[in-house]
Amino acid sequence: MPDRTKFVLDEREMPTSWYNVQPDLPQTLAPPLGPDDRPIGPEALAPLFPMELIKQEMSQERLVEIPAEVQEIYKTYRPSPLIRARQLERPLDLPAGVRIFYKYEGVSPGGSHKPNTAIPQAFYNKQEGVRRLATETGAGQWGSALSIACAFFGMECTVYMVKVSYDQKPYRRMLMESYGASVVASPSAKTNAGRAVLRRHPDSLGSLGIAISEAVEDAATHDDTHYSLGSVLNHVILHQTVIGQEAIKQMEMAGAEPDVVIGCVGGGSNFAGLALPYFHRRKQGRSKARLVAVEPKACPTLTAGEYRYDFGDEAKMTPKILMYTLGHDFVPAGIHAGGLRYHGDSPIVSLLVKTGDIEAKAVHQRACFEAAEAFARAEGILPAPESSHAIRVAIDEALAARQAGEARTVLFGLSGHGHFDLAAYEAYNKGLLRDYDFAAGTFAEAE
Amino acid sequence: MPDRTKFVLDEREMPTSWYNVQPDLPQTLAPPLGPDDRPIGPEALAPLFPMELIKQEMSQERLVEIPAEVQEIYKTYRPSPLIRARQLERPLDLPAGVRIFYKYEGVSPGGSHKPNTAIPQAFYNKQEGVRRLATETGAGQWGSALSIACAFFGMECTVYMVKVSYDQKPYRRMLMESYGASVVASPSAKTNAGRAVLRRHPDSLGSLGIAISEAVEDAATHDDTHYSLGSVLNHVILHQTVIGQEAIKQMEMAGAEPDVVIGCVGGGSNFAGLALPYFHRRKQGRSKARLVAVEPKACPTLTAGEYRYDFGDEAKMTPKILMYTLGHDFVPAGIHAGGLRYHGDSPIVSLLVKTGDIEAKAVHQRACFEAAEAFARAEGILPAPESSHAIRVAIDEALAARQAGEARTVLFGLSGHGHFDLAAYEAYNKGLLRDYDFAAGTFAEAE
Repeated sequence: MPDRTKFVLDEREMPTSWYNVQPDLPQTLAPPLGPDDRPIGPEALAPLFPMELIKQEMSQERLVEIPAEVQEIYKTYRPSPLIRARQLERPLDLPAGVRIFYKYEGVSPGGSHKPNTAIPQAFYNKQEGVRRLATETGAGQWGSALSIACAFFGMECTVYMVKVSYDQKPYRRMLMESYGASVVASPSAKTNAGRAVLRRHPDSLGSLGIAISEAVEDAATHDDTHYSLGSVLNHVILHQTVIGQEAIKQMEMAGAEPDVVIGCVGGGSNFAGLALPYFHRRKQGRSKARLVAVEPKACPTLTAGEYRYDFGDEAKMTPKILMYTLGHDFVPAGIHAGGLRYHGDSPIVSLLVKTGDIEAKAVHQRACFEAAEAFARAEGILPAPESSHAIRVAIDEALAARQAGEARTVLFGLSGHGHFDLAAYEAYNKGLLRDYDFAAGTFAEAE
Repeated sequence: MPDRTKFVLDEREMPTSWYNVQPDLPQTLAPPLGPDDRPIGPEALAPLFPMELIKQEMSQERLVEIPAEVQEIYKTYRPSPLIRARQLERPLDLPAGVRIFYKYEGVSPGGSHKPNTAIPQAFYNKQEGVRRLATETGAGQWGSALSIACAFFGMECTVYMVKVSYDQKPYRRMLMESYGASVVASPSAKTNAGRAVLRRHPDSLGSLGIAISEAVEDAATHDDTHYSLGSVLNHVILHQTVIGQEAIKQMEMAGAEPDVVIGCVGGGSNFAGLALPYFHRRKQGRSKARLVAVEPKACPTLTAGEYRYDFGDEAKMTPKILMYTLGHDFVPAGIHAGGLRYHGDSPIVSLLVKTGDIEAKAVHQRACFEAAEAFARAEGILPAPESSHAIRVAIDEALAARQAGEARTVLFGLSGHGHFDLAAYEAYNKGLLRDYDFAAGTFAEAE
């Protein structure tokens, strides 16, 4: 095998279809349920989403063509690089047969995997004559991605940003505004949902649940406006499969097949985007890769949640979906990987964990930051706190293989960079970060 | 010509040598002068720099081999992409013969072109047994790059950061600290130079000149420590030529030869890195590209400065070099492209402007931010304020060609992203930015 580090694809090798896992699932996805606990049809979603996305949500076609206009914009940053982590491997003192690769999505505008779905979502809405998109954002990665996507298509974008983030992460807000988005601190006086919260709690810091309610209400009450969601849903996961399809080609260039594929999980789209094309490859008998979803121990949906129908949001505005959940009223502790603080998980990922096709692991945040800084100092890239969960497990897998004297090829998804998360690194370096004991419901003492 | 957007090179096509322009210059570079106004020799630089870099500073060899260790680390982010700016071209309504391409250096760790020289500088120092590097930083791009490079080679790094930036840009400081660097607000009590300033001005906000003096003193007074500079010097410019060498190959892939090559200029290394390989190509008779260096009207070194010997720093610690200069005691107005606020310019770029081989242009900052936001909303990438100067002129060149009914292929260098410059975008969007009238010595009214 040649001694190579970085595996790039020409844009002509970029996937031209998304991979839809639905026909390959071990069982059909359970339908979403409406207020009367009966399955809902496409028409129930029409006030919020364009018909093309609703079709994708329910599609049984294995391949869904990527529109030419979306491919054209993907090409400004895709295909993303796949890199052999040689500089990280060295201090870990790995034997020749143990290798670590990562697929890096931080090269996108916005610095994460989120534009992969924001761009087609904006495109399909634009095609159906929608003038404006409304969404919510917590840490800001999704709001940034949708702001950028709307700018590409000349659409307006309203982002309901959880108030505590709005106040504490002004740079994320400014980034969205630079792309022309309107950013509203949530709860706001713009919606009934927001006003109701403000009446009860004038000083509310907001929550993702409240912000979702505001964005959904905004979309539902304006004819020219739709709603857009950055994870969980089947069509979002569909769009992210460009990641794994590219990775398969790049790993072939590297002459390597992964033994384990690792990604961090909040709503599940980043992990699924990398792992599902490998799930398909496994079905084809061309891969034996274990697929490992990593979540924070402070919000252990897949490892400690129940598999049952639940609402996607705190305010019960969404349909009920069958998934692993900690309960729609679960309020995750204030850990620094904001993108992983979600009480539920995507129905697709949940089902595959249930059937044993995907393994789930939970890790503590300090161990993740330790791995993230080791990675940054070796490979150069400062990871997003979310992505650090995958790095932690990737390093652990490599060390376990060294320990066992086994060969192992590890592939993990580096979903984004941490340029907007430096306050978290500062807290870690000052010894101020604490790990959350989910069972006890308390934070451990700081270092 | 195929309808392509992004031109990527395999790492095996990455340049293996840097291009040294010195043997191709129209006249020999004038030597740096010491305190007695006599040319200084290599030994005068030895307390600050490793011998290999001093040799490069004076080398007359056209090609300087890139060490294997440096190539290996380059590969974590290089070759960088070259992109046809299709999304930007569309709203400009350009005819088929007018095209805009950009070479994007923001994919590096640190988000700018600076690691291209930080990595070899750290490497050569490490090879000669140096344990620690000291440097200064203003806006923070260079300090970040050197912090990362030192982390790669397990070296210590001390960054003297201009106090006003240290206070106002905490995220840049945190970034450097995440890579293990020590960041010191300058003026500091750690050096004689710093203490002298603090005695006179206890509330000093610092300046790049003071920070240089502190870093140089730190290096000169510690045996295990060297000094490192991020622009201006010949060896820095040498290292940046990986940019232009890659761009030539990528433009060939695109089936296009640039008619004009554009870059922003502070100390000159980003521009020279892209432009000098085209200068060489012009000498070979294979290119007729105009080379355009763009600087801020608030600090118009090349367009309004004098060509004469001057000090590189305010405190007259450096040798005198022959260059365009606004005077070593010139204090640039507080515009937002911190990396372009330098009173002088690289001797190489200065000479080639003097001989007419390079054109120089000066632009106002508001026009640059306008171009930057148009670019961000079209291409997705939010540019560094420095890079926006190149975008402004690239757009103007394309519009002028449209106006004249001429074909024109425009190539510009996008030296970095603006993730750490969002306060500047915020100020622009609130109409708070003002343009500086250099001749009058005053800021114009805000919008």
